[in-house]
Amino acid sequence: MGIAVNDIEQANSVYEKLLGVPPYKQEAVESESVITSFFKVGDSKIELLASTDDEGPIAKFIAKRGEGIHHIAFDVDDIQLELDRLEQEGFRLINKVPKPGADNKIIAFIHPKNTNGVLIELCQENTEK
Amino acid sequence: MGIAVNDIEQANSVYEKLLGVPPYKQEAVESESVITSFFKVGDSKIELLASTDDEGPIAKFIAKRGEGIHHIAFDVDDIQLELDRLEQEGFRLINKVPKPGADNKIIAFIHPKNTNGVLIELCQENTEK
Repeated sequence: MGIAVNDIEQANSVYEKLLGVPPYKQEAVESESVITSFFKVGDSKIELLASTDDEGPIAKFIAKRGEGIHHIAFDVDDIQLELDRLEQEGFRLINKVPKPGADNKIIAFIHPKNTNGVLIELCQENTEK
Repeated sequence: MGIAVNDIEQANSVYEKLLGVPPYKQEAVESESVITSFFKVGDSKIELLASTDDEGPIAKFIAKRGEGIHHIAFDVDDIQLELDRLEQEGFRLINKVPKPGADNKIIAFIHPKNTNGVLIELCQENTEK
Protein backbone atom coordinates (compact mmCIF):
# COMPACT_ATOMS: atom_id res chain seq x y z
CA MET A 1 0.00 0.00 0.00
CA GLY A 2 1.10 3.56 -0.60
CA ILE A 3 1.06 6.36 1.97
CA ALA A 4 1.24 9.99 0.83
CA VAL A 5 3.58 11.99 3.08
CA ASN A 6 4.97 15.51 3.08
CA ASP A 7 8.55 14.74 4.01
CA ILE A 8 10.11 11.39 3.11
CA GLU A 9 12.87 11.58 5.74
CA GLN A 10 10.46 12.45 8.55
CA ALA A 11 8.12 9.64 7.45
CA ASN A 12 10.98 7.15 7.11
CA SER A 13 11.89 7.85 10.70
CA VAL A 14 8.29 7.33 11.90
CA TYR A 15 7.76 4.08 10.00
CA GLU A 16 11.16 2.72 10.99
CA LYS A 17 10.16 3.21 14.65
CA LEU A 18 6.70 1.78 14.04
CA LEU A 19 7.76 -1.28 12.06
CA GLY A 20 11.12 -1.93 13.68
CA VAL A 21 12.93 -2.13 10.33
CA PRO A 22 14.52 0.50 8.05
CA PRO A 23 13.29 1.01 4.47
CA TYR A 24 14.85 -1.56 2.15
CA LYS A 25 14.84 0.80 -0.81
CA GLN A 26 14.46 4.47 -1.67
CA GLU A 27 13.79 5.49 -5.24
CA ALA A 28 12.68 8.48 -7.31
CA VAL A 29 10.03 7.96 -10.00
CA GLU A 30 10.36 11.04 -12.17
CA SER A 31 7.32 10.34 -14.35
CA GLU A 32 5.14 10.42 -11.21
CA SER A 33 7.06 13.28 -9.51
CA VAL A 34 7.66 11.25 -6.36
CA ILE A 35 10.34 9.98 -4.08
CA THR A 36 9.36 6.61 -2.63
CA SER A 37 10.68 4.40 0.11
CA PHE A 38 9.71 0.81 0.79
CA PHE A 39 9.29 -1.18 3.98
CA LYS A 40 8.69 -4.91 4.15
CA VAL A 41 6.06 -6.16 6.62
CA GLY A 42 5.55 -9.90 6.40
CA ASP A 43 4.68 -10.57 2.77
CA SER A 44 3.39 -7.03 2.27
CA LYS A 45 5.07 -3.78 1.38
CA ILE A 46 4.46 -0.29 2.64
CA GLU A 47 5.48 2.43 0.21
CA LEU A 48 5.90 6.01 1.39
CA LEU A 49 5.38 8.60 -1.34
CA ALA A 50 6.51 12.23 -1.18
CA SER A 51 5.99 14.64 -4.03
CA THR A 52 8.87 16.38 -5.79
CA ASP A 53 6.49 18.77 -7.59
CA ASP A 54 3.68 20.95 -6.21
CA GLU A 55 1.55 19.96 -9.20
CA GLY A 56 2.23 16.22 -8.98
CA PRO A 57 -0.49 13.67 -8.09
CA ILE A 58 0.76 13.13 -4.52
CA ALA A 59 1.01 16.88 -3.85
CA LYS A 60 -2.56 17.29 -5.11
CA PHE A 61 -3.79 14.37 -3.01
CA ILE A 62 -2.25 15.85 0.16
CA ALA A 63 -3.58 19.34 -0.63
CA LYS A 64 -7.09 17.89 -0.84
CA ARG A 65 -7.11 15.19 1.85
CA GLY A 66 -3.98 15.59 3.95
CA GLU A 67 -1.33 12.95 4.48
CA GLY A 68 -2.60 9.37 4.58
CA ILE A 69 -3.17 6.18 2.64
CA HIS A 70 -3.10 6.92 -1.06
CA HIS A 71 -3.68 3.49 -2.64
CA ILE A 72 -3.52 -0.23 -2.08
CA ALA A 73 -1.65 -2.50 -4.46
CA PHE A 74 -1.95 -6.09 -5.58
CA ASP A 75 0.69 -8.14 -7.34
CA VAL A 76 -0.65 -10.05 -10.32
CA ASP A 77 1.02 -12.45 -12.74
CA ASP A 78 -0.42 -10.96 -15.93
CA ILE A 79 -1.42 -7.33 -15.48
CA GLN A 80 -2.88 -6.83 -18.97
CA LEU A 81 -5.09 -9.91 -18.61
CA GLU A 82 -6.30 -8.67 -15.22
CA LEU A 83 -6.96 -5.13 -16.53
CA ASP A 84 -9.02 -6.55 -19.37
CA ARG A 85 -10.96 -8.79 -16.98
CA LEU A 86 -11.69 -5.91 -14.60
CA GLU A 87 -12.80 -3.61 -17.42
CA GLN A 88 -15.24 -6.30 -18.58
CA GLU A 89 -16.52 -6.60 -14.99
CA GLY A 90 -17.38 -2.90 -15.07
CA PHE A 91 -14.45 -1.40 -13.18
CA ARG A 92 -13.15 1.93 -14.47
CA LEU A 93 -9.49 1.78 -15.48
CA ILE A 94 -7.28 4.83 -15.05
CA ASN A 95 -4.58 3.08 -17.10
CA LYS A 96 -5.74 0.66 -19.77
CA VAL A 97 -2.13 -0.23 -20.48
CA PRO A 98 0.48 -0.64 -17.72
CA LYS A 99 3.30 1.85 -17.25
CA PRO A 100 6.64 1.68 -15.41
CA GLY A 101 6.41 2.12 -11.63
CA ALA A 102 8.80 2.00 -8.69
CA ASP A 103 10.55 -1.12 -7.37
CA ASN A 104 10.95 -2.69 -10.83
CA LYS A 105 7.21 -3.08 -11.51
CA ILE A 106 4.83 -2.23 -14.29
CA ILE A 107 1.67 -0.79 -12.82
CA ALA A 108 -1.84 0.39 -13.61
CA PHE A 109 -4.50 2.06 -11.49
CA ILE A 110 -8.21 1.29 -11.08
CA HIS A 111 -10.44 4.31 -10.44
CA PRO A 112 -11.83 4.59 -6.88
CA LYS A 113 -15.31 5.44 -8.16
CA ASN A 114 -16.33 1.78 -8.52
CA THR A 115 -14.26 0.39 -5.64
CA ASN A 116 -15.91 2.10 -2.65
CA GLY A 117 -13.48 5.00 -2.68
CA VAL A 118 -10.28 2.95 -2.81
CA LEU A 119 -7.61 3.71 -5.41
CA ILE A 120 -6.25 0.31 -6.44
CA GLU A 121 -2.93 -0.35 -8.13
CA LEU A 122 -2.12 -3.55 -9.98
CA CYS A 123 1.58 -4.45 -10.20
CA GLN A 124 3.53 -6.97 -12.18
CA GLU A 125 7.24 -7.65 -11.97
CA ASN A 126 8.99 -5.93 -14.89
CA THR A 127 10.88 -8.64 -16.74
CA GLU A 128 12.12 -6.37 -19.54
CA LYS A 129 15.29 -5.29 -17.78
CA MET B 1 -6.66 -3.27 6.15
CA GLY B 2 -10.15 -1.97 6.74
CA ILE B 3 -12.33 -0.22 4.15
CA ALA B 4 -15.32 1.85 5.27
CA VAL B 5 -18.34 1.21 3.02
CA ASN B 6 -21.97 2.25 3.01
CA ASP B 7 -23.55 -1.07 2.10
CA ILE B 8 -21.84 -4.33 3.01
CA GLU B 9 -23.68 -6.43 0.39
CA GLN B 10 -22.89 -4.00 -2.43
CA ALA B 11 -19.25 -3.85 -1.33
CA ASN B 12 -19.01 -7.64 -0.96
CA SER B 13 -20.11 -7.95 -4.56
CA VAL B 14 -17.51 -5.41 -5.76
CA TYR B 15 -14.61 -6.97 -3.86
CA GLU B 16 -15.61 -10.50 -4.85
CA LYS B 17 -15.38 -9.41 -8.50
CA LEU B 18 -12.14 -7.56 -7.90
CA LEU B 19 -10.35 -10.26 -5.91
CA GLY B 20 -11.91 -13.33 -7.50
CA VAL B 21 -12.85 -14.86 -4.15
CA PRO B 22 -15.91 -14.50 -1.88
CA PRO B 23 -15.55 -13.21 1.69
CA TYR B 24 -14.50 -16.00 4.04
CA LYS B 25 -16.35 -14.55 6.99
CA GLN B 26 -19.03 -11.99 7.83
CA GLU B 27 -19.44 -10.84 11.38
CA ALA B 28 -21.13 -8.13 13.45
CA VAL B 29 -19.12 -6.34 16.14
CA GLU B 30 -21.77 -4.71 18.29
CA SER B 31 -19.34 -2.73 20.46
CA GLU B 32 -18.07 -0.95 17.31
CA SER B 33 -21.51 -0.73 15.62
CA VAL B 34 -20.26 -2.45 12.48
CA ILE B 35 -20.88 -5.37 10.20
CA THR B 36 -17.61 -6.64 8.77
CA SER B 37 -16.66 -9.05 6.04
CA PHE B 38 -13.22 -10.48 5.37
CA PHE B 39 -11.38 -11.37 2.17
CA LYS B 40 -8.07 -13.17 2.01
CA VAL B 41 -5.45 -11.86 -0.46
CA GLY B 42 -2.19 -13.75 -0.22
CA ASP B 43 -1.13 -13.44 3.41
CA SER B 44 -3.14 -10.25 3.89
CA LYS B 45 -6.75 -9.59 4.78
CA ILE B 46 -9.14 -6.98 3.51
CA GLU B 47 -11.92 -6.12 5.93
CA LEU B 48 -15.01 -4.27 4.74
CA LEU B 49 -16.74 -2.27 7.47
CA ALA B 50 -20.32 -0.96 7.29
CA SER B 51 -21.92 0.93 10.14
CA THR B 52 -25.05 -0.29 11.88
CA ASP B 53 -25.51 3.04 13.68
CA ASP B 54 -25.52 6.59 12.28
CA GLU B 55 -23.45 7.69 15.28
CA GLY B 56 -20.90 4.87 15.08
CA PRO B 57 -17.22 5.47 14.19
CA ILE B 58 -17.54 4.15 10.63
CA ALA B 59 -20.66 6.24 9.94
CA LYS B 60 -18.81 9.32 11.19
CA PHE B 61 -15.75 8.51 9.09
CA ILE B 62 -17.84 8.19 5.92
CA ALA B 63 -19.81 11.36 6.71
CA LYS B 64 -16.51 13.26 6.92
CA ARG B 65 -14.34 11.63 4.22
CA GLY B 66 -16.55 9.38 2.12
CA GLU B 67 -16.09 5.67 1.61
CA GLY B 68 -12.48 4.50 1.53
CA ILE B 69 -9.62 3.02 3.47
CA HIS B 70 -10.25 3.42 7.19
CA HIS B 71 -7.20 1.79 8.76
CA ILE B 72 -4.32 -0.59 8.23
CA ALA B 73 -3.70 -3.46 10.60
CA PHE B 74 -0.66 -5.40 11.75
CA ASP B 75 -0.65 -8.75 13.51
CA VAL B 76 1.66 -8.83 16.51
CA ASP B 77 2.53 -11.61 18.95
CA ASP B 78 2.23 -9.55 22.13
CA ILE B 79 -0.03 -6.54 21.64
CA GLN B 80 0.46 -5.08 25.13
CA LEU B 81 4.25 -5.19 24.79
CA GLU B 82 4.00 -3.50 21.39
CA LEU B 83 1.60 -0.81 22.69
CA ASP B 84 3.98 -0.04 25.54
CA ARG B 85 6.94 0.11 23.14
CA LEU B 86 5.11 2.47 20.76
CA GLU B 87 3.96 4.74 23.56
CA GLN B 88 7.58 5.03 24.73
CA GLU B 89 8.60 5.84 21.13
CA GLY B 90 6.18 8.80 21.21
CA PHE B 91 3.21 7.37 19.31
CA ARG B 92 -0.21 8.39 20.60
CA LEU B 93 -2.33 5.40 21.61
CA ILE B 94 -6.09 5.51 21.18
CA ASN B 95 -6.37 2.31 23.23
CA LYS B 96 -3.75 1.77 25.92
CA VAL B 97 -5.25 -1.63 26.62
CA PRO B 98 -6.51 -3.95 23.86
CA LYS B 99 -10.21 -4.67 23.38
CA PRO B 100 -12.10 -7.44 21.56
CA GLY B 101 -12.32 -6.99 17.77
CA ALA B 102 -13.65 -8.97 14.82
CA ASP B 103 -12.24 -12.26 13.54
CA ASN B 104 -11.24 -13.51 16.99
CA LYS B 105 -8.67 -10.80 17.67
CA ILE B 106 -7.89 -8.39 20.45
CA ILE B 107 -7.10 -5.00 18.97
CA ALA B 108 -5.87 -1.50 19.75
CA PHE B 109 -5.58 1.62 17.62
CA ILE B 110 -2.70 4.08 17.21
CA HIS B 111 -3.73 7.69 16.56
CA PRO B 112 -3.09 8.94 12.98
CA LYS B 113 -1.64 12.22 14.26
CA ASN B 114 1.87 10.79 14.63
CA THR B 115 1.72 8.29 11.75
CA ASN B 116 1.37 10.64 8.77
CA GLY B 117 -2.41 10.49 8.78
CA VAL B 118 -2.73 6.70 8.92
CA LEU B 119 -4.96 5.06 11.53
CA ILE B 120 -3.12 1.92 12.59
CA GLU B 121 -4.62 -1.11 14.27
CA LEU B 122 -2.58 -3.70 16.13
CA CYS B 123 -4.13 -7.18 16.37
CA GLN B 124 -3.33 -10.24 18.37
CA GLU B 125 -5.07 -13.59 18.16
CA ASN B 126 -7.48 -13.92 21.07
CA THR B 127 -6.51 -17.08 22.93
CA GLU B 128 -9.07 -16.69 25.72
CA LYS B 129 -11.88 -18.47 23.92
